[in-house]
Amino acid sequence: MSRASSPAIFVYAHLDDAGRGVLRSALTGVRVVFADKHRDGAAHQEYLHRFRESDVCFGNVPADWLPQASRLRWLQLESVGFEYYQHVPNLPPGLVTTNLKGLFDTPAAETAMAGLLALYRGVDELVPAQVERRWVSLDVRPRMQLLHGRRVVILGHGSIGRKLRQLLEAFACRVQSFARTTAGAELRTAPELDAALPDADIVACCLPNTPATRGLFDRRRLALLAPGAVFVNIGRGLVVDEPALVETLQQRRIGGAVLDVTYEEPVPPDHPLWSCPRTLLLQHTGGGYDGELPAKARAFVANFARFEAGAPLHHVVNLSQGY
Amino acid sequence: MSRASSPAIFVYAHLDDAGRGVLRSALTGVRVVFADKHRDGAAHQEYLHRFRESDVCFGNVPADWLPQASRLRWLQLESVGFEYYQHVPNLPPGLVTTNLKGLFDTPAAETAMAGLLALYRGVDELVPAQVERRWVSLDVRPRMQLLHGRRVVILGHGSIGRKLRQLLEAFACRVQSFARTTAGAELRTAPELDAALPDADIVACCLPNTPATRGLFDRRRLALLAPGAVFVNIGRGLVVDEPALVETLQQRRIGGAVLDVTYEEPVPPDHPLWSCPRTLLLQHTGGGYDGELPAKARAFVANFARFEAGAPLHHVVNLSQGY
Repeated sequence: MSRASSPAIFVYAHLDDAGRGVLRSALTGVRVVFADKHRDGAAHQEYLHRFRESDVCFGNVPADWLPQASRLRWLQLESVGFEYYQHVPNLPPGLVTTNLKGLFDTPAAETAMAGLLALYRGVDELVPAQVERRWVSLDVRPRMQLLHGRRVVILGHGSIGRKLRQLLEAFACRVQSFARTTAGAELRTAPELDAALPDADIVACCLPNTPATRGLFDRRRLALLAPGAVFVNIGRGLVVDEPALVETLQQRRIGGAVLDVTYEEPVPPDHPLWSCPRTLLLQHTGGGYDGELPAKARAFVANFARFEAGAPLHHVVNLSQGY
Repeated sequence: MSRASSPAIFVYAHLDDAGRGVLRSALTGVRVVFADKHRDGAAHQEYLHRFRESDVCFGNVPADWLPQASRLRWLQLESVGFEYYQHVPNLPPGLVTTNLKGLFDTPAAETAMAGLLALYRGVDELVPAQVERRWVSLDVRPRMQLLHGRRVVILGHGSIGRKLRQLLEAFACRVQSFARTTAGAELRTAPELDAALPDADIVACCLPNTPATRGLFDRRRLALLAPGAVFVNIGRGLVVDEPALVETLQQRRIGGAVLDVTYEEPVPPDHPLWSCPRTLLLQHTGGGYDGELPAKARAFVANFARFEAGAPLHHVVNLSQGY
């Protein structure tokens, strides 16, 4: 079947064969150009050229490409975060941008649970001991703790925060969520958050990087945490004051940290976070799972059907404002 | 307050100051002898002597002491497992033995969840990478999996198996429990178990070591597992054919294993389990948590109140039979 009037699609998203297969079988007859980002610099210029001729783009292209895409009507990002595009001047008029909200809820929430349970149940000590074939059972056991019944403050009440909350509640945790505008959160204001922090066993950040969230968990708030508290970040690194967090961990003023996200990614080899006590660096793997790339492709295909039908697209984001 | 007619109590249980404090404040006026197991061999003889004069013992004394305790009326074990005492001849007539059933449900189930999530979410690879300050995010991410929606067979439907089931169901896992006699299990017979195994993503053993369970998960059953399946053991090592499990893991015929228990504990330094692919050795820490020792003491105190009142004791076990 040929679709003579179909838009030209430029696919810059990171996909595997399964993901490309999803697109090829769903978009028969549509003009699709796949970028291979592993190719050299010459290809970069070729892809920019193809991008400028496209009506639709799927994938996180370099931000400075956007003003050059005069034909572009829809940009489907392959991420939830879109902070890299928030300060681009001269966007194509009428461009609609969408993200993959919802696609990473379960993997991100499971990674937060994996990190918390690893710290509480001694997996962070038992795995290195196994590498060295050391039996450390009696050393580790007195330091083990339960997740059961913990008091938790979750920063952010979006889809990841809500999913994490549901999992924690299955472990009988008593959860309060902080969100200034999203309905359903118990903690609505900065003073309410500050009042809850000293009683929290766990603070879990699920916030995006926006002007309103950047630096929200600052040195003053870190100092409000109880001695045994665990700080989790599966949102964005810039939400917490990272130098203050490093000091807090190095001085063992809190119980530990589970960090999927950081200021710099990759974390530089000489960075102090690698060796902070009781700190797990999860290297921004939180959204990953084996079916991730085909799922991204299916999400694009579903939104493309709406695009062709003239229906409102799912998960529109506003590049000119925070979200 | 003096209790002139109170029984003599011998405490051999592993306790910390908090645990001993629980006993001292609850047992004012009762004759209590605390053994210090860190003392030398001479103390061993002294403690055996004290044990033989006791009416009540709290703790897992050497099995060969039991026939010598002609006065002993009640032995409160400090464990759930009691296989070490099952073949003792000439037990004191009328001796009642109780275990700590229920005390380790939550920690053991949380340790199983920690191990499973560590494997599925790449923590087993990210922790050693952190020690070496290696950024392996893009390597690990394609191997990451979700616990969400997994099909699970739990061997055993006692208090640990039921607790684990509840946690797995919060991750939308579809769980079937195997138990020949306990009510509420879907799988009641060996053929029913065998039929369920090829479809299981996870098989989690929560069985004690009894004549009926020993070797239950044999080479034939291991061969029924699907290629990606994960085998978990938070029960007892002797329930699974360990040499067959080692081969299965070394040949990567299943997806991995989470082993809290093994044939030999400590696992010898040259044992192949230390380096089996995708295998977490949790070194029998599963029951541990920071409040464990006081909780053990409180459980004894509660049962002692029943003993003094002549009420039936909690968690009586039969040393002459399996349970």
